[in-house]
Amino acid sequence: MPEHPAYREITGGVGAPRGFRAVGVSCGLKASGRPDIALIAADRTVSAAAVFTTNSVAAAPVVVSREHLEAGLARVVVVNSGNANACTGEQGLAHAVGMASATAAHLGCQASEVVVASTGVIGVPLPMERVVAGIEKAAGELGSDPSSHSAAQAIMTTDTFSKECAVALESGEMTVTVGGMAKGSGMIEPHMATMLAFVTTDAALTPAACGVALRAAVARTFNRISVDGDMSTNDMCLLMASGAAGGGPIGEESPEFPGVSAAIAHVCGELARMIVRDGEGATKFIEVTVRGAMSESDAELAAFSIADSPLCKTAVFGGDANWGRVAMAIGKSAARIDPSAFDITFAGVKTCVAGQAVAFDEEAASAALAKRDVEVVVDLHLGTGEATVWTCDLSYDYVRINGEYRT
Amino acid sequence: MPEHPAYREITGGVGAPRGFRAVGVSCGLKASGRPDIALIAADRTVSAAAVFTTNSVAAAPVVVSREHLEAGLARVVVVNSGNANACTGEQGLAHAVGMASATAAHLGCQASEVVVASTGVIGVPLPMERVVAGIEKAAGELGSDPSSHSAAQAIMTTDTFSKECAVALESGEMTVTVGGMAKGSGMIEPHMATMLAFVTTDAALTPAACGVALRAAVARTFNRISVDGDMSTNDMCLLMASGAAGGGPIGEESPEFPGVSAAIAHVCGELARMIVRDGEGATKFIEVTVRGAMSESDAELAAFSIADSPLCKTAVFGGDANWGRVAMAIGKSAARIDPSAFDITFAGVKTCVAGQAVAFDEEAASAALAKRDVEVVVDLHLGTGEATVWTCDLSYDYVRINGEYRT
Repeated sequence: MPEHPAYREITGGVGAPRGFRAVGVSCGLKASGRPDIALIAADRTVSAAAVFTTNSVAAAPVVVSREHLEAGLARVVVVNSGNANACTGEQGLAHAVGMASATAAHLGCQASEVVVASTGVIGVPLPMERVVAGIEKAAGELGSDPSSHSAAQAIMTTDTFSKECAVALESGEMTVTVGGMAKGSGMIEPHMATMLAFVTTDAALTPAACGVALRAAVARTFNRISVDGDMSTNDMCLLMASGAAGGGPIGEESPEFPGVSAAIAHVCGELARMIVRDGEGATKFIEVTVRGAMSESDAELAAFSIADSPLCKTAVFGGDANWGRVAMAIGKSAARIDPSAFDITFAGVKTCVAGQAVAFDEEAASAALAKRDVEVVVDLHLGTGEATVWTCDLSYDYVRINGEYRT
Repeated sequence: MPEHPAYREITGGVGAPRGFRAVGVSCGLKASGRPDIALIAADRTVSAAAVFTTNSVAAAPVVVSREHLEAGLARVVVVNSGNANACTGEQGLAHAVGMASATAAHLGCQASEVVVASTGVIGVPLPMERVVAGIEKAAGELGSDPSSHSAAQAIMTTDTFSKECAVALESGEMTVTVGGMAKGSGMIEPHMATMLAFVTTDAALTPAACGVALRAAVARTFNRISVDGDMSTNDMCLLMASGAAGGGPIGEESPEFPGVSAAIAHVCGELARMIVRDGEGATKFIEVTVRGAMSESDAELAAFSIADSPLCKTAVFGGDANWGRVAMAIGKSAARIDPSAFDITFAGVKTCVAGQAVAFDEEAASAALAKRDVEVVVDLHLGTGEATVWTCDLSYDYVRINGEYRT
């Protein structure tokens, strides 16, 4: 018997769970004319929880949304892309509040029930006329896109594909659905870095249970990915729970909680890995696992030190099983290690045992490194702590994309 | 009156101070046939102090040299390039000890008076026959190169130019000389990252004064540079003081100490900036200054967060005054900041005041960014803490060089 009732992947995104409608429209924030305003609306006020960027230069929408979510309730999310509304001072705060008010007016709710998110260029005032017109347009079109695909498209910036997924889960007598969408491709790092993620469920989670489930999921998914070690001013990950699947309230102690929580973590994990696969200029998807650490936290430190190392990332880009750089990276991390104990397996090939080189088949390693997905596994042989981090390689295109982005 | 007697730059490197001879020879560790063994020999046992990598995967020569320097005395340094003797286990330690013994035999000193350093590929056993032959050859040629330029060449790896400098200083009745050489171009970060630096002086510093002067100098020079945020297994910075300039012992409290100490810091600063200018693939030299911080340590945290950010580095490569990324970088650092207080000046152009965008002349900014040297200045307006960090941009060539290095 599995510990949790198994969930299955289904099509759709944030609109898949009952009790939510989502849509994306264009209001002219993006020069390309692509969709740039999204709404995710619940049919009524629902439980909600979020985690936000830890960057102390938090953008205006982060400041406003953090306040609005204090009671653990929300009705609707409004998101714009193309402009981050960050480093915009008092005017920026007024604009974020203005987005909430305009949305509330169309949805017939309180402004404090609106979560606001923005992503795009920093330091440019929002053109509020366009944004307000966009909100009106989106509100009018709510329900017109059962797939919610237009919403996922409207939150993209340098993303090359939209990111959505959903799962269904038999929970007691009910079918519970969890759906999500995300954006992000550069400036990705743990602790919510230039990343927006919105997850919905029709499970009847209480506000407190929303918070517990979301934080547990984020800790091992969105906080375990890295593209470039940079962290944005705007990131947030939000969970809303409509309860439309039926049944009584689900708290942390309810028998349904572990299953629903696992489904939420699965959706977060899928979205997180999609973000890494869309890493700016990425040619390889790298899964770094450190095991045998003194603690999970040590394992995470060592894994991130590898994942964030430009030398390790360029080695993978170059198809080079350069395990010496992995040894360097774990050594410079704050993780406790024994330099004569660790093993390194690079793309399935054991390259280092007990801290020393071992002869390996360079051709087999090159062949394994030519694949799109590359695994780096380190065993520290000190304990039972384990962590997996996902990242991508560092390519010429990363430099091109980021050398040319703003201009 | 200046606080310290002024020093003046002179030609030369580690061989410039009296009482030292240095030479570099080739022993076949480098496939190119270029010089790969260097000796720096004092005429007698002298005061010495060093700082080493904090990477817990320390290479064998680091382990051996740390032990040899415990008494604060040394006679000679032996350095090989082309092979790091790192991740080489017990055999590696035996090889490092062997390098010390071979050198001691030729110089007629104790093995414990020999400092050993290695740089190059990780995880490959040293070909000791060649190394020992190289040491013999170098010992025979000591004194044949008064410029000591061959020694500076023999420690290069991916360096595109050798790094040397020297200054002379009138100290009381004496002329004191300080000289230095260094190598390093990638994997550079604070705390001695893939960097070797050797500084000599003919001042009669005591072993304790050597340590104080070196640590003070390193803290604001070699520990304030960053190429890629990676840190090597092999780094060290060594100071040897022969006393051949004459005069009595110079301790920390001696009137000569501040002047000599400043000259040592100057040599370290010049060498550190040369390393950054030779950063792998670098097209720009970037000086990041953070002032107005609550403490010098806060200023350093914020400055490194900018200097290590791939997004900031690619922006400079692209000639883009993308100050939003600088705001992001200071926000993600652990430095205390007020998001409504900081100013950012990018390449001499004020782009952000009190945490907000200000209109600026994009053409003037582009022209300033087209230059080889770019300054980024942040004023946090919170206190008097200040720190300057030197780094370089992140270019296509960084990716090329590091994607192809080992293979």
